[in-house]
Amino acid sequence: MAASQEELESYYGKEIILADRELVETGSKQILNNADKEDVAFLVVGDPFGATTHTDLVLRAKREAIPVEIIHNASVMNAVGACGLQLYNFGQTVSMVFFTDNWRPDSWYDKIWENRKIGLHTLVLLDIKVKEQSIENMARGRLIYEPPRYMSIAQCCEQLLEIEEKRGTKAYTPDTPAVAISRLGSSSQSFKSGTISELANYDSGEPLHSLVILGRQCHELELEYLLEFADDKEKFGKDVANDQEYFKPAAWVPPTEDDSDE
Amino acid sequence: MAASQEELESYYGKEIILADRELVETGSKQILNNADKEDVAFLVVGDPFGATTHTDLVLRAKREAIPVEIIHNASVMNAVGACGLQLYNFGQTVSMVFFTDNWRPDSWYDKIWENRKIGLHTLVLLDIKVKEQSIENMARGRLIYEPPRYMSIAQCCEQLLEIEEKRGTKAYTPDTPAVAISRLGSSSQSFKSGTISELANYDSGEPLHSLVILGRQCHELELEYLLEFADDKEKFGKDVANDQEYFKPAAWVPPTEDDSDE
Repeated sequence: MAASQEELESYYGKEIILADRELVETGSKQILNNADKEDVAFLVVGDPFGATTHTDLVLRAKREAIPVEIIHNASVMNAVGACGLQLYNFGQTVSMVFFTDNWRPDSWYDKIWENRKIGLHTLVLLDIKVKEQSIENMARGRLIYEPPRYMSIAQCCEQLLEIEEKRGTKAYTPDTPAVAISRLGSSSQSFKSGTISELANYDSGEPLHSLVILGRQCHELELEYLLEFADDKEKFGKDVANDQEYFKPAAWVPPTEDDSDE
Repeated sequence: MAASQEELESYYGKEIILADRELVETGSKQILNNADKEDVAFLVVGDPFGATTHTDLVLRAKREAIPVEIIHNASVMNAVGACGLQLYNFGQTVSMVFFTDNWRPDSWYDKIWENRKIGLHTLVLLDIKVKEQSIENMARGRLIYEPPRYMSIAQCCEQLLEIEEKRGTKAYTPDTPAVAISRLGSSSQSFKSGTISELANYDSGEPLHSLVILGRQCHELELEYLLEFADDKEKFGKDVANDQEYFKPAAWVPPTEDDSDE
């Protein structure tokens, strides 16, 4: 993941064409050009099927009767297990994009809610902006790109809290436990367990980051693992216990005489 | 995945100790013995965090202050994307064990139902029995092991249908679309799209197998991919459309005059 283009070229003994988003999304003809006659390798970070664009590329190749061989790889979708939460207890994955003044999409809120209603953890993938143009440069047709931006854990948590405050339906609360995952798979990877409001003040350091919002199905072993990453283990244990009460079915209360009179 | 112990030993230039289930589950002391003084590598098929036993091993190492480094790997949990369904639309993963006369566990039924209620796909991992003793041999303390058994797609689908018939709550039906995945990641990997009742008659060949039961959130690109693996594309397309109607919210019907009179 940390290798430079030069290092990869020297490793493979071949020239590498850097495929930016534009090339991948609109340049399938260029990528598949001659692929029926010679081998073309399309390298990705993570699992090749992490993005619909890659599925689309395979479909286009199949339509042109180009044989495709997939070599699988570790991906954040399974390496996230390194935080100690079991992979089979994760629900659907959501993406958190940078909010702007006019664009604050929150469809992920319902997905987190759905996951938590059935007790599942939610992996939140944090936005990255690489090779993006400013609106002004885009309008003027200037191919000048903004410096790359990577969402921090703190910003993600602030956006989570903003939308929860707006919706007010408690899909999660400021006290819901979560795990911040930084630089996963690199030698400097780190984890931090805390509530969403605590992590809104967490300095997560260099990118990339992801966040997992806990579900109710938190096994004893999972909790033991998460406690290793908590600043205040006792508090975090209590936060998890309190949060788990959320979506439990309500306890049965025997009717009182007043109730039966009505 | 297909390498023999000898091939691995020649590749690594080291002797390898075959860790069977018993050693992994009860022999952590043996595995961690001297690991504070010399490097011990614990090799697994798939992702290291696919099993709680591995999480437990890491926790035990941490308690003894043994540094642990994790090297992630592809796993069925993400390689399943090769069937064309997007990883972020999967819910919790379930395991299907071999039914016996007295033991027919079905807690997975509710999990599939929960996933399908919110539109998500379910990965079903199929049971394998390796180095198992018969009840008679176990009772007599004879260390004789049964030949390895791997659940087929057909048997998995029969067990799915049996429990649906018993429960009768339509978490899925015989007509629910699914994808059979065989020998994933190997050169002979194959996929078959069909309804659960169709796949109950499917000869899936050599192991290992997994099954994905579709959720309602089936994107156009996902369907296009799945159609490649269907015997009757037109029928499968209709099966998917019909199944998607299942958990949709009921359409609003304007009250009739009769209704408003009541």
